[in-house]
Amino acid sequence: MKNKSKDRSKEFIVRETEILRGITEKAELFSKSVVKGIGDDCAVLDCSNEYYQLAKSSTLSEGFHFNLKWSTPQQIGMKAIESAVSDIAAMGGLPRYALISIAFPSFAKNAINDKFINEIYKGINSAAKKYRISIIGGDLTSSEKIIINTSIIGLAEKGFLALRCNAKIGDAVFCSGSLGKSKAGLELLLRGMKGASIISHLEPKARLNLSRNLAKAGVNSMIDVSDGAAFEIEKICSSSNVRAVIYASNLPVSKSTKKDAERMGEDYIDFSLYGGEDFELMFTAGKNLLPKIKKYDVTAIGKIVERKHGADVVEIVY
Amino acid sequence: MKNKSKDRSKEFIVRETEILRGITEKAELFSKSVVKGIGDDCAVLDCSNEYYQLAKSSTLSEGFHFNLKWSTPQQIGMKAIESAVSDIAAMGGLPRYALISIAFPSFAKNAINDKFINEIYKGINSAAKKYRISIIGGDLTSSEKIIINTSIIGLAEKGFLALRCNAKIGDAVFCSGSLGKSKAGLELLLRGMKGASIISHLEPKARLNLSRNLAKAGVNSMIDVSDGAAFEIEKICSSSNVRAVIYASNLPVSKSTKKDAERMGEDYIDFSLYGGEDFELMFTAGKNLLPKIKKYDVTAIGKIVERKHGADVVEIVY
Repeated sequence: MKNKSKDRSKEFIVRETEILRGITEKAELFSKSVVKGIGDDCAVLDCSNEYYQLAKSSTLSEGFHFNLKWSTPQQIGMKAIESAVSDIAAMGGLPRYALISIAFPSFAKNAINDKFINEIYKGINSAAKKYRISIIGGDLTSSEKIIINTSIIGLAEKGFLALRCNAKIGDAVFCSGSLGKSKAGLELLLRGMKGASIISHLEPKARLNLSRNLAKAGVNSMIDVSDGAAFEIEKICSSSNVRAVIYASNLPVSKSTKKDAERMGEDYIDFSLYGGEDFELMFTAGKNLLPKIKKYDVTAIGKIVERKHGADVVEIVY
Repeated sequence: MKNKSKDRSKEFIVRETEILRGITEKAELFSKSVVKGIGDDCAVLDCSNEYYQLAKSSTLSEGFHFNLKWSTPQQIGMKAIESAVSDIAAMGGLPRYALISIAFPSFAKNAINDKFINEIYKGINSAAKKYRISIIGGDLTSSEKIIINTSIIGLAEKGFLALRCNAKIGDAVFCSGSLGKSKAGLELLLRGMKGASIISHLEPKARLNLSRNLAKAGVNSMIDVSDGAAFEIEKICSSSNVRAVIYASNLPVSKSTKKDAERMGEDYIDFSLYGGEDFELMFTAGKNLLPKIKKYDVTAIGKIVERKHGADVVEIVY
């Protein structure tokens, strides 16, 4: 079950990357204001002398990103905002506005009642308030399962924008907080077990304040960990045309994640590399930045090296 | 079947309005830049001296907005863009950027293949090119049925913005083009019949150029006809705190729509009042504007009068 779902998730990410490559090649840009279109955590638009505008649309799908068996509607709403804020954080930006579209079963035997929708919005509003995001629109539609789309608009100071494509050879690779905790929580839920990691799966939090500090400190590249650390560093490397060496023993994993993995007879390193939705930040920075950023909740996990013909883009050293 | 689906659609619109009222009351705005939040065709943001920025997120849901039995993937993609452009047109604005998120069955026995997704994007790109919209992002996700969310960002000159809430007592009510054609097409498809209206259902077109002309001419209020003319005029009246009298015999219905309705033994007035997705424009304007707008493809269908306590917000005179 576990490996199947990991493989499926990997398969989908590979396929998504492939389809997106085709889409990006064919998408035409009709405006000089587009600084970055498809291919980073947010689109970047040139809108004033001081700021870039950031825009991102992302989807939470019932049965894939949340499960009604264990998530409350408020938790689902909170996750919709945290997940979107995490994309703004990945650019070093600030979220400002969000549009929320919810498709839900409205008539069928599995109909969702209005109270449930209102509870989702309660979660959306509480998370939006925390980040001072104004909810400015969206729509409601019928569907067979619940699908929540969040479009978020934010801004980034022109000097501080952090893209995926600026990793430099010689950079150290860092990540914030701890990894694998959401995956450990999900696996506990799937097994009907209890444990400290569960709340990390049900109520993940974006790292907005930290990302602002890192962007201001001057990191070279940044991404948020929504698909799993191994996939995220691969995206940075592909965009920056470099290679990364990651030391698995350096990956930050909390005591409770280790304990929960152990109780399930699972490998916590696997959780930390391939588990999604931690919403931590992964970034690369020159060594001269170390004194500035070591005070933050970040861990060095590897290095950026030259791309080698025929070699994997990411090498994981166990 | 017909009445059931009409009642369902009406029921959903009433319910959506009710839920949205609750959401709007609870949504907090944290920025003075929000000129208009939830409650119009687009959100309006104050972003420069000359322009407002417009933003809208809307969803097409398989089985509700399109049916794989008769829509090609290209037509579905085109509709996603036309539907979003129609919301920008309703404000008198210009579309600039779009983010497309597609959720689709990726693994199950009803899996959609990559070619199908690429065909959807072919439709998206061809419609986007027509309007010079840059596709700047989005995502791909798994779901049980296809759900396409389009977030569109545009602009409107500050002098020309057309809101729902500015209908004035004494205004005439107009609508563009002809009504009921998409509904007639859908009903033909549901009955396995052929007819000229079918293409209007499968390939609806937004009225962007016309809306620009109307906004510049100085209409008081405007909305696009996506839910049916009767519902749209009700939205204008509710937002503007006025009442409308609509003369059913004045509703513009094309010869082919009349013919198709007749062949099905259906009432074309019903199609024109309650059929959705025509993407025509409905607007109100003072009588002094008549000379300026009569050259356009528009028809006067009623008038705006004072709100009467206890009376229906919209009176339809047959």
